[in-house]
Amino acid sequence: MSASSFDAVGALTFDVFGTVVDWRAGVVRDGVELGHAKGIDLDWPAFADAWRALYQPAMQRVRTGEIDWCVLDDLHRMNLDELLTHHGVAGLTEDEIDHFNRAWHRLDPWPDAVAGLTRLKTKFILSTLSSGNTALLVNMAKRAGLPWDVVLGAETASAYKPQPRAYLRNTEMLGLPPERCMMVAAHNGDLAAASALGMKTAFVCRAQEHGPGQTSDLEPGGAWDIVAEDFLDLADKLGC
Amino acid sequence: MSASSFDAVGALTFDVFGTVVDWRAGVVRDGVELGHAKGIDLDWPAFADAWRALYQPAMQRVRTGEIDWCVLDDLHRMNLDELLTHHGVAGLTEDEIDHFNRAWHRLDPWPDAVAGLTRLKTKFILSTLSSGNTALLVNMAKRAGLPWDVVLGAETASAYKPQPRAYLRNTEMLGLPPERCMMVAAHNGDLAAASALGMKTAFVCRAQEHGPGQTSDLEPGGAWDIVAEDFLDLADKLGC
Repeated sequence: MSASSFDAVGALTFDVFGTVVDWRAGVVRDGVELGHAKGIDLDWPAFADAWRALYQPAMQRVRTGEIDWCVLDDLHRMNLDELLTHHGVAGLTEDEIDHFNRAWHRLDPWPDAVAGLTRLKTKFILSTLSSGNTALLVNMAKRAGLPWDVVLGAETASAYKPQPRAYLRNTEMLGLPPERCMMVAAHNGDLAAASALGMKTAFVCRAQEHGPGQTSDLEPGGAWDIVAEDFLDLADKLGC
Repeated sequence: MSASSFDAVGALTFDVFGTVVDWRAGVVRDGVELGHAKGIDLDWPAFADAWRALYQPAMQRVRTGEIDWCVLDDLHRMNLDELLTHHGVAGLTEDEIDHFNRAWHRLDPWPDAVAGLTRLKTKFILSTLSSGNTALLVNMAKRAGLPWDVVLGAETASAYKPQPRAYLRNTEMLGLPPERCMMVAAHNGDLAAASALGMKTAFVCRAQEHGPGQTSDLEPGGAWDIVAEDFLDLADKLGC
């Protein structure tokens, strides 16, 4: 499709973890730092993967109502405590654990992200549509220079993707119908949920999200409106 | 107090209408334009004042529960319809009325606002804490170049200032206790409510908000932490 096919699109709504920022490298970096400071010898890439692997199951407990609504900072902390116990890591202070838990506030963007977002911002409202909580997303953006027009955390809907409300509450807050919003994500499942609600879709491949052995989301898994190599390519394809 | 007294402040939360943007001039400008296009002869400054005068009573109906929660766009529209009827203005299309109602999305900032916010942003998280809804505030910021880190509309709390929840839900979303947030407003009542909840306070005088005959909020009405002439002076006083 030509860029003019998207003239009615008013906002781009972005998945964040994996799509905009490299969560794995950021968690590994902070893990290595903690390890050096406290003499903890762990396989930090494996630790990061294990931490992330607990992410969806924790959100599922919220989605199903097994546990009350809580923000991602709290789910991350619950999972971190579990992993530290599992690995026999003891002797960290509350401040040290809290600081490590906030590694997710200090993730670096993919190299094309800030430049691409800056171009896309000239034409579209740029919003987050993430499972991250507002404070996490704001602190991340402040540190990394992500030029969001609006940061909508998961508290906005008190729902976690792919629950429909997580998408529809965001588009409602933006004052736009779903078809005038384009979901941008590196995850086919996220785009499938957005598309089913009438949103436009853009797939951006992030083949290193899970490290060198990644097997998922290496290709578009649906008839997405746009398939882009990175945010600069997305800006090209949207005429920015 | 010296700027270092505020080292613990993480975020500045801004009232918007009157403090950041000149609602009266913006509404008058769009009214004059509508009048020319449609041959409507009204005293537009008086119309703007009348529209604004219906603002607090409309929010009060929401605060008391007389009407269900609704966003400011809807309250503005309800009040606009009432005023148009009162003035015998007929023959406008739905699109024309809707466009005029969105004059509040197209307000210009005070001359110092963008430059001041840009300086303040180097040191603090800048957030809205406004009765405006998110889409209104995002559209306004996009048009005017207001460099918010995060736009929190009144839907965040589903409450209207000075209800405590309107302040406390915002500080919670920012991940900061009230005492680490500074409310910036041109209205003493707003600062009194914020201060009572433990927030820091900065008064910025906007002596032209209500036009040449303004009698309210010409002086600080409490022992606010900072009293500033404009946002550039505020940046000076906060060491930015």
